[in-house]
Amino acid sequence: MQILKKEHAEMNAVHSPLERLSVMADVDMRAVNALILEYMQSDVPLIPKLAQYLIAAGGKRIRPLMTLASGQLFEADMSKVHYLAAAVEFIHTATLLHDDVVDESEERRGQKAANLIFGNQASVLVGDFLFSKSFQMMVESGSLDVLRILSEASAIIAKGEVLQLSTTNDLETTLDDYMKVIESKTAALFSAACEVAPVLAGAPEDQIRAMYDYGKNLGIAFQITDDALDYSANQEKLGKAIGDDFREGKMTAPVIFAIQEANKEERIFWKRTLENKVQSEGDFKTALEIISKHKALDQAMDLAQDYAEKAKNSLAPVRPCETKNILSELADFTISRET
Amino acid sequence: MQILKKEHAEMNAVHSPLERLSVMADVDMRAVNALILEYMQSDVPLIPKLAQYLIAAGGKRIRPLMTLASGQLFEADMSKVHYLAAAVEFIHTATLLHDDVVDESEERRGQKAANLIFGNQASVLVGDFLFSKSFQMMVESGSLDVLRILSEASAIIAKGEVLQLSTTNDLETTLDDYMKVIESKTAALFSAACEVAPVLAGAPEDQIRAMYDYGKNLGIAFQITDDALDYSANQEKLGKAIGDDFREGKMTAPVIFAIQEANKEERIFWKRTLENKVQSEGDFKTALEIISKHKALDQAMDLAQDYAEKAKNSLAPVRPCETKNILSELADFTISRET
Repeated sequence: MQILKKEHAEMNAVHSPLERLSVMADVDMRAVNALILEYMQSDVPLIPKLAQYLIAAGGKRIRPLMTLASGQLFEADMSKVHYLAAAVEFIHTATLLHDDVVDESEERRGQKAANLIFGNQASVLVGDFLFSKSFQMMVESGSLDVLRILSEASAIIAKGEVLQLSTTNDLETTLDDYMKVIESKTAALFSAACEVAPVLAGAPEDQIRAMYDYGKNLGIAFQITDDALDYSANQEKLGKAIGDDFREGKMTAPVIFAIQEANKEERIFWKRTLENKVQSEGDFKTALEIISKHKALDQAMDLAQDYAEKAKNSLAPVRPCETKNILSELADFTISRET
Repeated sequence: MQILKKEHAEMNAVHSPLERLSVMADVDMRAVNALILEYMQSDVPLIPKLAQYLIAAGGKRIRPLMTLASGQLFEADMSKVHYLAAAVEFIHTATLLHDDVVDESEERRGQKAANLIFGNQASVLVGDFLFSKSFQMMVESGSLDVLRILSEASAIIAKGEVLQLSTTNDLETTLDDYMKVIESKTAALFSAACEVAPVLAGAPEDQIRAMYDYGKNLGIAFQITDDALDYSANQEKLGKAIGDDFREGKMTAPVIFAIQEANKEERIFWKRTLENKVQSEGDFKTALEIISKHKALDQAMDLAQDYAEKAKNSLAPVRPCETKNILSELADFTISRET
């Protein structure tokens, strides 16, 4: 027992909450991965080929991990939760595929996107395939309540993506608009991912609500951090590609805060680069300088911090246990990450 | 009674089976249209704007009509069937939106496609929105069996579209490959549209199977006819745009039959125009001449006729009634239509 305790303490010290969650859900995650592989199969070879390209590339699988963790927490039927976790990952993957289908005028993100290799049409259609398959998996859970939650989340994600499209290159975009975008395009799936297992387990209403709120607030903190990292000089030092949002004219927290405090000259700069899409070399460096001058990144991260705190507080009604501790630490980890 | 009979006879003479189906399902279709309007709403204005553009443009609403007709035939709870008919139309609309998101190299169809007006990204995302909404509507039917059928149909449609993409510009595409494409991309939704209401009504297995088979065969006949019309000189006389499939290098029944009987010179022609995508003025006219020489359109329409017959025969287990008669006539009508 003493040894176990020591090992436990060491693990806490060495591993991030995300890694500890992965260890905790290891057996379940294997079952989820098996389902992911099974449901991406097709007698049309391009489908598994393209799906594999994106899914094998990895990602942190944070969303299905949260579904599994909440499944364990509420002692849900894990054989059904596996389907839901895989469905959540498929929705996320389909969204990524569709997100990357860009108008010709737009630049591409860090790594080569699937649509550049397989073409826009294939990306759209394989996205549709995965999306349909996610619903087939949900049906396996046997719960209409879960289907209601996840189909609504899917509609909200699509709505958020359209809203983001409408605010892109629009300097009038407010922090409020931005929050609406990220609540829809990101937080909706996080909250659904956390809510479905307790719903399946028939958990009390306040517990379901707690998990929903936790997921939503965590998702918001996660997205603000993501958007801040795209302007982080620290990232550049780590060799990560930054500046994609700037080049695409996406109205995210760092620029919105910087624009709020822009002087006349800066406003002209933002109008030219973001709204009129006229950018030349050195502009991104200038953007970073203006953002730094107004401490806009700090403001963004303060906002992310607020939502991480909200996420932790949301967990109050949940019974004390190791999973709860990890989920709580995950909130802090989400805003401290560098990738 | 005599008068009613006379009116009935006149209606049969004047109206197509599709129009008679519309009259028969008039009240139900209004409810479906109300649902379609309700579920395409969003506080993001671009969503109803784009959805409206496509849905208001009309189309024959043949799929939801079939769901309503089979709902009446099996005395299903029509308030639930309305949701299913609207869901079927949303799946179809989402597919159209995604179908029209083309690689830059491809030409556009007859009327200006939504993606040319609103952009590829908006078309993809609003398609996703409608697709998600279709699942929300299915949930309202309260039937997991129906959700299973329609989510599987959606996956098969996406698979069919990917398969079509893989066979485009490939001269080795066989009639068998082509049949697989249209069974998936078109017939799967027709069969599901006909199957869901009897499933909801708890109809006997043989009746459900009959409706499934009817829808599948009708869908195949419908698609072959569609593909033949794209090479029909008669269409051109009516002022319809033809030749889109040829320009895109789609391997459909008319060219597959023509290629089967091509001499060496013709094979070189097909290879250049369809496979190598090198087309110049006059090529489409040449294609029509070769197709005419080998009676390839007649062969395609014979095949469509076979499936229309199969559709009619599929209805054998269904009790005799007016709806059955109209569905039977609809099979003949499907292959005789000129639009």
